[in-house]
Amino acid sequence: MELLTRTLENIQDLNQDAMALAKDRLDNLIKPQGSLGRLEELAIQLSGITGELHPEMDDKAIIVMAADNGICEEGVAAAPSAVTLLMTNFIGSGVSGVRALSKTAGIDVITVDIGVAGEVSEKSVLCKKVKPGTDNMAKGPAMSREEAVKAIEIGIDVATEEIKKGRKILGTGEMGIGNTSTSTAILAILSGLPVEDLVGVGANLPEDQLSKKAAVIRKAIEINNPDSEDILDVLAKVGGLDIAGMAGVMIAGAANGVPVVVDGYISTIAALVAERLDSRVKDYLIASHFSYEKGAKAASELLGLDPMLHMEMRLGEGSGAALALPIVEAAAQMSSQMLTFQETGIGVV
Amino acid sequence: MELLTRTLENIQDLNQDAMALAKDRLDNLIKPQGSLGRLEELAIQLSGITGELHPEMDDKAIIVMAADNGICEEGVAAAPSAVTLLMTNFIGSGVSGVRALSKTAGIDVITVDIGVAGEVSEKSVLCKKVKPGTDNMAKGPAMSREEAVKAIEIGIDVATEEIKKGRKILGTGEMGIGNTSTSTAILAILSGLPVEDLVGVGANLPEDQLSKKAAVIRKAIEINNPDSEDILDVLAKVGGLDIAGMAGVMIAGAANGVPVVVDGYISTIAALVAERLDSRVKDYLIASHFSYEKGAKAASELLGLDPMLHMEMRLGEGSGAALALPIVEAAAQMSSQMLTFQETGIGVV
Repeated sequence: MELLTRTLENIQDLNQDAMALAKDRLDNLIKPQGSLGRLEELAIQLSGITGELHPEMDDKAIIVMAADNGICEEGVAAAPSAVTLLMTNFIGSGVSGVRALSKTAGIDVITVDIGVAGEVSEKSVLCKKVKPGTDNMAKGPAMSREEAVKAIEIGIDVATEEIKKGRKILGTGEMGIGNTSTSTAILAILSGLPVEDLVGVGANLPEDQLSKKAAVIRKAIEINNPDSEDILDVLAKVGGLDIAGMAGVMIAGAANGVPVVVDGYISTIAALVAERLDSRVKDYLIASHFSYEKGAKAASELLGLDPMLHMEMRLGEGSGAALALPIVEAAAQMSSQMLTFQETGIGVV
Repeated sequence: MELLTRTLENIQDLNQDAMALAKDRLDNLIKPQGSLGRLEELAIQLSGITGELHPEMDDKAIIVMAADNGICEEGVAAAPSAVTLLMTNFIGSGVSGVRALSKTAGIDVITVDIGVAGEVSEKSVLCKKVKPGTDNMAKGPAMSREEAVKAIEIGIDVATEEIKKGRKILGTGEMGIGNTSTSTAILAILSGLPVEDLVGVGANLPEDQLSKKAAVIRKAIEINNPDSEDILDVLAKVGGLDIAGMAGVMIAGAANGVPVVVDGYISTIAALVAERLDSRVKDYLIASHFSYEKGAKAASELLGLDPMLHMEMRLGEGSGAALALPIVEAAAQMSSQMLTFQETGIGVV
């Protein structure tokens, strides 16, 4: 808890002076004022985060948190739990979706076993296992409060380590069969919306099993009865180690002045967790794509961040973050690569 | 007209066999089927366009068509016509928006003077001037039918030249003060929608001048009375040389099996022109971003292509195409970089 508390204390407000300077320059670039829309908003945010007029976003990494979820015992997922271990190895070895999409953009992928059930054989995967998967939240708490904090702190540690290596921007990703169930449980509690309105097919669960999935999630909420005002209680009782780890990555980004690109549904839930721990974390986050998973819209609305990309994707792994990172990098380049009217010598037209 | 006719005759249907092979491989990659959404649709389209299972999209260029519009005499734009010449030089010299956004993604920008009023001094700009700006369409046709065809053929020529050099994918862009007026005139005729519902502020025209802009566009349509079933008549009478040139780029892409990424509002209008010349052109086009210009939504709906990016941008120059090209490249990489379940040796899970 000490690392989490200390890290949260290190989060600063965005640098308003840098943002004002950035906006002033953007307003004077050789284009109609405001015509680069959200790209301009991104550039101003990046200046606020870094305190720099021309931040570089060239050293990019996605941190993928892999963990199992005990809730899978209840048959809420199309794929067996063993797929988490298989896919964690494949993400590590570079043959999965997020790696394919990261390659041309020069994005590194760091894979973390934060709670996979079974032994990960791929050597590049960081072994940071809190425990081999959470407990079945339909029968009791998914994990203890201490385990939830430990998982957040692992996220903080891994992200801080990457930032020390020179990463200028991070993205989040996850792998964990059953994690749309944990995400939906957290979202239902935080939003107050009915589980039925949020539950989706995840990795192709047949539609006729959706009502059962909803019933299991409802049961998990009822049995554990988490305190919606105590986000660590919610996270521990009906969350996942992957979600906790990604929340830690976001908190570390905020504490170190490094922007974090949020992937899809599960990542957005992690962002909600991080934001409840300190609302200023949100200022350091950039939403990437609109996940096609049913609850994603409600999650984005609750967080108050509007994703840029509409790709109807629902893979996870950080695949949406991989597509958005080059756009954020372009936003950072815009202001330094374009001239102002004054610099061209023609004055304002 | 001979080059245009011949090029249109060279357009083939998409390669259905290649698309079926691509879909089959995508369905077997180590991910839930369909979970990469529109990225999968893009990959299948790229296979249909190129006939290849694993097309490479690494050699990328945006062709920017610059031209003036006589309609500016009527005071429909916030900036004076002279800005077209200034900005054409700046796009050529690499200090404008599209160049800033293209740099990190390794996209080349080819700037074409297809009808700028005044002499472009920047040597890298291709001089292909049909005439120094169109005539004032509020007083008569913007150009002759022969000039419209010539501008399309210049687009075909420039694009074909780039494809011969090895370009695997092209994007469109434009620079031309007054070109939201010409675009809106074409769109009103093709869609049958009232000009008032389509007219927007372009490059920051004050809102209180919008009704005047609409009146000028309506007058241009009334005076010229183009035949809505004859797209060359529409293009010549109320279009622009930039729009014609971009339509030519799209037609050349389709005729040569090269995908073309469509930028924003003006580019979408060019796509509508190209599609009316041969409906199969649309199969070779990829929509990039949802322009914030008012008519953009109606234009995309009429074309039937749904842009991926929601950035509230309205700069033009190909700035949206620059952001989308890396995503299309990632879609092309996905299938070759990811393994199938069979290739991992674990079979389908």
